[in-house]
Amino acid sequence: MGLVVQKYGGTSVKDAQRVNNVAARIVEAYDAGNNVVVAVSAQGDTTDDLIEKAKEINENASKREMDMLLATGEQISIALLAMAIEKLGRPVVSLTVWQAGFMCDTNYSAARINKINTQRIQNELDRRRIVIVAGFQGINKYDDITTLGRGGSDTSAVALAAALGADICEIYTDVDGVYTADPRFVKNAKKLDDISYDEMLELASLGANVLHNRSVEMAKKYHVKLAVKSSLTREEGTYVKEVDQVEKMLVRGVTRDNDCARVALCGVEDTPGKAYTIFSLLSKKNIGVDLIIQSIGRSGKKDISFTVAEGDLPAVLQILDDNRDTIKADEIVSTTEVSKVSIVGAGMVNNAGVATTMFEALYNAHININMIATSEIKISVLVDRKDAERAVVAIHDKFMLD
Amino acid sequence: MGLVVQKYGGTSVKDAQRVNNVAARIVEAYDAGNNVVVAVSAQGDTTDDLIEKAKEINENASKREMDMLLATGEQISIALLAMAIEKLGRPVVSLTVWQAGFMCDTNYSAARINKINTQRIQNELDRRRIVIVAGFQGINKYDDITTLGRGGSDTSAVALAAALGADICEIYTDVDGVYTADPRFVKNAKKLDDISYDEMLELASLGANVLHNRSVEMAKKYHVKLAVKSSLTREEGTYVKEVDQVEKMLVRGVTRDNDCARVALCGVEDTPGKAYTIFSLLSKKNIGVDLIIQSIGRSGKKDISFTVAEGDLPAVLQILDDNRDTIKADEIVSTTEVSKVSIVGAGMVNNAGVATTMFEALYNAHININMIATSEIKISVLVDRKDAERAVVAIHDKFMLD
Repeated sequence: MGLVVQKYGGTSVKDAQRVNNVAARIVEAYDAGNNVVVAVSAQGDTTDDLIEKAKEINENASKREMDMLLATGEQISIALLAMAIEKLGRPVVSLTVWQAGFMCDTNYSAARINKINTQRIQNELDRRRIVIVAGFQGINKYDDITTLGRGGSDTSAVALAAALGADICEIYTDVDGVYTADPRFVKNAKKLDDISYDEMLELASLGANVLHNRSVEMAKKYHVKLAVKSSLTREEGTYVKEVDQVEKMLVRGVTRDNDCARVALCGVEDTPGKAYTIFSLLSKKNIGVDLIIQSIGRSGKKDISFTVAEGDLPAVLQILDDNRDTIKADEIVSTTEVSKVSIVGAGMVNNAGVATTMFEALYNAHININMIATSEIKISVLVDRKDAERAVVAIHDKFMLD
Repeated sequence: MGLVVQKYGGTSVKDAQRVNNVAARIVEAYDAGNNVVVAVSAQGDTTDDLIEKAKEINENASKREMDMLLATGEQISIALLAMAIEKLGRPVVSLTVWQAGFMCDTNYSAARINKINTQRIQNELDRRRIVIVAGFQGINKYDDITTLGRGGSDTSAVALAAALGADICEIYTDVDGVYTADPRFVKNAKKLDDISYDEMLELASLGANVLHNRSVEMAKKYHVKLAVKSSLTREEGTYVKEVDQVEKMLVRGVTRDNDCARVALCGVEDTPGKAYTIFSLLSKKNIGVDLIIQSIGRSGKKDISFTVAEGDLPAVLQILDDNRDTIKADEIVSTTEVSKVSIVGAGMVNNAGVATTMFEALYNAHININMIATSEIKISVLVDRKDAERAVVAIHDKFMLD
C-alpha cells in the first residue's frame, strides 16, 4: 500500500460533471489500495469572481481580508469533492488548512509554507479515509488565513507529499504532460516522459505554465517525485525527478514568455556602482529583474538594458523617474512588445554548439535578437513579441527534428 | 464607552450597496465611542445557491460536508464587510468561528453553542478594532465546522453579547420591529416599543419570523437586552427585555403559522396508554407534536387529532402506517390545508374574557375553529388555511381597536 498525493486545478473541478470525474479518479487510486490525500483549487472562475466582488466594495482592500475572502473558493471545492466521493460510497473527509495544519509565514497573499502539522491528516488516513485538503492557502502564527499566491495549489500538494513522505505527487491539470514546446502553436511538439527538477524549474519559470516554480523547488528540496498528468485523459504524463544521467536529448524544451517588458537607460555615466544603485532601488520595492545587458562604455557613458515582468513596468518607470537625479540617464525608453524565448536542457552546458544552433535557427527565420542570457541549463533570447511564436517553432524544428 | 453587538441578516448585505450601508451603520456606532462586534449572515441567496451546487453532485451529502460548504457563505460576508469598513478608514478585522472561538456540540447542521472562547475577540477590541464575526456556525470538539440551523445568526449574535457582557444586542433585519400582527396583510398592525422575552418567545415560535426562538431563549437565560431594528430605516425598533409589570395591553400580538398539518386517527380503541403509544412512536423519530385533541370516547372508541410541522407529515403517515397493527384506528386522515392562529400576551392569564373575545371575533367573521390550545400567555386555534389571514385581521381588529 502506497501513499499518493494528488492535486486538481480549477479547470479540473469547474462544474459538477468535472467534480464527479475527479472523484472517480481519486476512488480509483484508493481502491488500488493506496492512501490518498488530495489538494484542490477553487472551481473555474470562482477566485476571479470573488476578486470582482471585493473590487466592487473596495479597490484597495487589505491583503488579510482578500485572503479571508479568497480562501472560501477552495473550501467550496473540498466540500463538493468530498460529497462526490461520498456518493461513490468511499470514506472521505474534507479539511481546511487550519484543520490540516498548514503553518505559513505572515505574507498575506504570497505566503510560504513553514510546516505542516500532519496529525489530523494522519489520523484520518489511519481510519482509511480519503483526505481532501484546500489548496492555495495556509494559516499564520496569528491564526489568520493566508494565501500562497499564483500556482499555490501545486505548492500545497508538494508540501503535503513532502510532509507525509508520499510515494508520488500527481499534479492533474488540463494538459497531459510537459512538452518540448507549447503544443498550441508548435504542431510537432513532443511530450517528455521525464524531466529533471532543474530543467523543470527553468521551464516553469520561463512560462511553460504547467507547474509553478515554487512547487518544483520544493519538490527538488524534499525529493518528492512529481507526475504531471491530464485529469481528462488516461495518458501517462511526465515524471519530474532526479535524473541520474545526462539524457540523450540536449534540449528538453523551448518556451516563450510574454510576461516581460524591456527598459533601456541610455547614456548613463560610466562610473563604478551605477548598476548597483539602479538595481538596489528596484529590489527595495520587491521588483525582480531578469535579463540585464550593459554596453561597453564610450566617451564616459554607457547603456543599461534590463527586463522585468510586464506588470511591474509602471512601478519601475516611476522609481526611475523619482531617482532621475541620481541615475542621470540621457534617455529612458521602454517597451512591452518583447518576448523571452528560451531553450532548456541539462545537457547543453557541455555543448558549445547549442547556442550557435539556436541563433542559426533565428537567423534563418529572419528574427532579430534583442538580448541574450545564458545559464548552465538554459539559453534565453529576447525577441520582438510579434516574432515570438515563429521563433519557438523555428528553434523547436531545428533541435527536435534534427 | 459601551459594548454593542450587532447582527445583520442576509438581505441586509445582499449586494455591494447594502454592504456599504451596513458598514456605515457599524462605523456610526463605533464613532459614538462604542466597542462594536458584528455577527453577519451569508449574502442574499448565497446559502440556497450553495445547497443547489451540492444537490447537483449528491442529494444525500453528509451534514458534515454540507456544513463545510455552507460555512463559506458567511466567510464571504465577513471579508466583504470588513473591506467596506476599511474603506471608511476604521480599524477592523473579520473572524471565522474558529478564530472567534465558537465552541459547539457535534450536531452537524443543527449545532448548539456551548461556549465562546472570547480571548481573540477581546484582544481585537482592546486594540479598538471593529470585529466582524461569521454568524450561523461554530466549531465542535473534533475541530470540524458545524452550522446552527435556521435563524442561527441571531443566536450567534446573542451568544456573543452574553459571552462579552454587551450592553445591547441589536438585531438588524428587513422589518423595523415586532408588530402586533404581520403588517403585510394587517393594515393597522402597530409596532411594539417593547416586549418581554416570554411574549417574544411565543411570537417567535408561532411564526412571527422576526427573531429565531433559540436566540430569544438564550437572551432570556443570560439577560441580554435585544433590539430588533431595520437596517434600511432609522426607526427606533422594538426592545426585547425583562418587563417588570403587566402591560396595559392584554394581547401583544396576533400570529399566523402556515407550517402545520393536521392528522386525525378516527375510531381508536379507548384503552389506557393509547396516546402514549402513538406519541412515543413519533418522538422516537424526533417529530414534535403541537396541538393535541382527544375526543370523549363512545362505544369503546375515541378520536385523536394532532398537528405537526408540514414537512414532517410524510414521515408521520409512514410511522402510523408501519404501526397500524398496534394503533388499530378505523381511519387515518390528514390535511395540510390548516393554519394556526394565535394571540400572545403576558396579561391574558388573569383575564378569562380574552379567549371569549377571540372566539367572538372568529364567529363574527364566520370562521370555523378546528382545534384550540391555551397556555399561560397564548391562545392558539387551528383554522382552515384559506381563512387564516382573515382570522388574524378579525382578531387583531377586535383586540387592538377596542
